[in-house]
Amino acid sequence: MRLFQAGELKLLKEVRERFRLDPEEKSVIVGIGDDAAVIAPHQKKIIVTTDMMNEGVHFDLDYTSPFHLGFKLVSVNVSDIMAMGGVARYLFLDLAFTPDADDDFFRNIYDGIEHALSLYGVRLLGGDLCSARNDTVLSATVIGEGEKIITRAGASAGDKIYITSSTGDSACGLEILKRLNKETKEIIRKTVGAMRCLARVDTGIEGQEPEEIGELAVNKGSEIIGISWRIAEPLLMRHLMPVARDSRDIVPHASSMLDVSDGLFIDLCRICDEGSTGATIYKDKIPLSAELRVASELLGLDAIHLAVSGGEDYELLFTSRDFPLDEYNRTHDIKVSCIGEITREERNIIDSLGGKKPLKAEGYQHFGPPG
Amino acid sequence: MRLFQAGELKLLKEVRERFRLDPEEKSVIVGIGDDAAVIAPHQKKIIVTTDMMNEGVHFDLDYTSPFHLGFKLVSVNVSDIMAMGGVARYLFLDLAFTPDADDDFFRNIYDGIEHALSLYGVRLLGGDLCSARNDTVLSATVIGEGEKIITRAGASAGDKIYITSSTGDSACGLEILKRLNKETKEIIRKTVGAMRCLARVDTGIEGQEPEEIGELAVNKGSEIIGISWRIAEPLLMRHLMPVARDSRDIVPHASSMLDVSDGLFIDLCRICDEGSTGATIYKDKIPLSAELRVASELLGLDAIHLAVSGGEDYELLFTSRDFPLDEYNRTHDIKVSCIGEITREERNIIDSLGGKKPLKAEGYQHFGPPG
Repeated sequence: MRLFQAGELKLLKEVRERFRLDPEEKSVIVGIGDDAAVIAPHQKKIIVTTDMMNEGVHFDLDYTSPFHLGFKLVSVNVSDIMAMGGVARYLFLDLAFTPDADDDFFRNIYDGIEHALSLYGVRLLGGDLCSARNDTVLSATVIGEGEKIITRAGASAGDKIYITSSTGDSACGLEILKRLNKETKEIIRKTVGAMRCLARVDTGIEGQEPEEIGELAVNKGSEIIGISWRIAEPLLMRHLMPVARDSRDIVPHASSMLDVSDGLFIDLCRICDEGSTGATIYKDKIPLSAELRVASELLGLDAIHLAVSGGEDYELLFTSRDFPLDEYNRTHDIKVSCIGEITREERNIIDSLGGKKPLKAEGYQHFGPPG
Repeated sequence: MRLFQAGELKLLKEVRERFRLDPEEKSVIVGIGDDAAVIAPHQKKIIVTTDMMNEGVHFDLDYTSPFHLGFKLVSVNVSDIMAMGGVARYLFLDLAFTPDADDDFFRNIYDGIEHALSLYGVRLLGGDLCSARNDTVLSATVIGEGEKIITRAGASAGDKIYITSSTGDSACGLEILKRLNKETKEIIRKTVGAMRCLARVDTGIEGQEPEEIGELAVNKGSEIIGISWRIAEPLLMRHLMPVARDSRDIVPHASSMLDVSDGLFIDLCRICDEGSTGATIYKDKIPLSAELRVASELLGLDAIHLAVSGGEDYELLFTSRDFPLDEYNRTHDIKVSCIGEITREERNIIDSLGGKKPLKAEGYQHFGPPG
C-alpha cells in the first residue's frame, strides 16, 4: 500500500506505539506525541548532533535497502556523540517520503532504526513525518550525555595518533556498489538488505548468516571482473551499515578525538588545525583490511589512497599520550592502531624508506568544484 | 556565484564566523565546528523539538523568499518549545541546497535565521550543510528549557478554552499566494521578502515600512479580482513569516497547551483525545481578523472554515481554569480569546442561535488521500 493512502495520523500512531517508552525510563518526562519531548538528563552536560541523508547525494536506492538506510542514519549520528566522549541517549527523526513510497519501505526504515536503537541503547523521542516531492530525505538529531568531553582541539606535540579498526573499506565498498549492474544492485538491496547480515561481530545483534551469493560481477573499465562474496561483503557492509565505535574505554586517555567521516587525512588536518599542531603519519602503519587489499588490487585502485581520502569510515581518530594500546587490543574486538604522532608544525607522511611527503587534506566535501 | 563552486568548507567557515558565540555564554561548552555541540543547561528539564520543511511540499520558491524561509524554519520550531511551556535556547540546522542555488540564496536564508534567532534569543550551535538533488530541504532542531511543562494532556471538564490572536489568516494568505500570476509571485518573493516587512509589532524588529504595492490581482475562478495590499499583506505575512507566540505569562495558568499547526479543530481534538474530554466551542467567539473577513468575502471563501481547519497558524491553544483574560489583554499586544470550554464527553459547536453541531477534527495531514 502507498503511504499516501494511509494518512499521516495512522502512520504516526504506528510509530508511537512501536517505540513506546518503558514507564521506568525516569529521564524522559514527555516522549513521542506532543509538541516537543522533555528530558531530565542524568549528567550535567548534554551533547547534541544532527545529520542529514538525501537520496541521490548520500544514498542510492538502487542498492541501498530501507533497513540499511535506517540503521546508518542512527549510526552516523551516534558516532558523532561517541567521538565527543559521550554516550548516545535520545533520537529525534525528520523523515520525508516520496509519493511512490509504500508501507514496506516505511516499516523497513523503522526496522533498521529499531535495530540501531537497540544496539546503541538509544530511545526515539520524537520527530516529524512528512512528504517529499522527488527524493527521500532523512534527518536525525541525537542527544547524548557525557562528563569528560573530547573535542577536536586538545592535541599537542608529542601525542601519539590512533585510529580504530581500518579506513578505506567503506569507500571501496561504494566503488564496488557503483560498478554493479542493475540486477546485482537489486540483489544487494533485496537480499542482503533484508536483515540477513546482522550476525556480525561488531553489531552484537544475532541474525541469520548471509546467504551464499558467490561471486559479484563488477565493472572495471571495459571488462567485467569477479570479486568473491567473502571479500566483497565486509566492504559493502562497511558502506551500507556502518557501526559507530564505542569510545568509552578510549575517552579517559584521549586528548582530542573525532570520527572519520570525510576522509582520514582531511579529518586529521581538522585536529591539527584546531590544536595548531603538525603531524607525522607513517604510511606503513595505516591499517588496511585484508578485504580492502584484495579488492583494490582486483579493481586497480590504490588501497592507501582509499584509506586516507575515502569517506564514511566512522572510525575514531584520536590523540593520546598514555593510551594503553596492547592492553586495549587484548580486551577489545575492534582493534586500535597507532599511525603517527602530533608535531609542532610540519605535516608529513613518512614512507617505508624514510621518504617524506607533505600531508594534504584529502577527502569529500559537498559543493566542491566538479571533478 | 553557485554554491557548488564555493566548497563546503568555505561555506561552513562563513556560518561558523557569522554565528560565533559570545564567550560569556557559559551554558555552551562546545559550539559550532566539532562533531557535536555540548551544552550545560540552566534548568533540569530540557525540551526538544524538530521540524522539516521541503520544497514543493511545505513551501514554493516562486513566492517564498529565502529570508522568509529561514525565519519561518526557526519560528515553527520555537513555537513548539513555547507550546510546551519552555523558552527556546539552541538551534541545530540541517540544510540541503540544490545545484542551482547561489550564494545570495544561501546568505538570505541565514539572514532570516539570524533575525529569528535575535528575536527569540536563540543560539545556532551546529548542524549539517549538504547538497540535494532536486529540492531544497531545511530541517531544524530546537532545544529549550522549562520548569513547568504543559503537555496536550491535562485539560479537564470545566476548563475554559483559549486561543491567542486569530486563526485562518495563514491559510487565507496561502490561498492568495497560490492565486497570483507568476510576475506577482516574483514581486512578493523579491520585494516583500527582502527584509522590508520587518517593521511589524509582533516581531519587535525595527525595519523599513513595506513599499506600497497597491492592489494584488488575484485569480478567482474565471475572473481576476483586486485585493488591496493593506488587506493582503498581513495575511501573506502570517503565512510566509509566522511569529511564535510568547507563552511565558500563559504557562502559570495553563492546564494543557499546543500550538495550532494543522488546524484549530484537529488540534483541539488532540487536546480532547489526550485528556479524554469533550469540548464546546462557541462559533461566534472564534476570533477572525478584519483582513480575513474582507479577503475571504472577496475570494468567495468561508472565513470560519479557514479559521477552524486552515493550517500553519502557530497560535497557542490552551485550557485553563483561572486565566486572567482581561488583565492579560490589557497588558499584551497579542490578545487572547476564550472560545469555549472543556466538557466531559461530547464535542460540539454552538452557533449564535444556540444550534448544536458535532465538532470534527478538520485540518491538514501528510500522506492523506488525494482530495
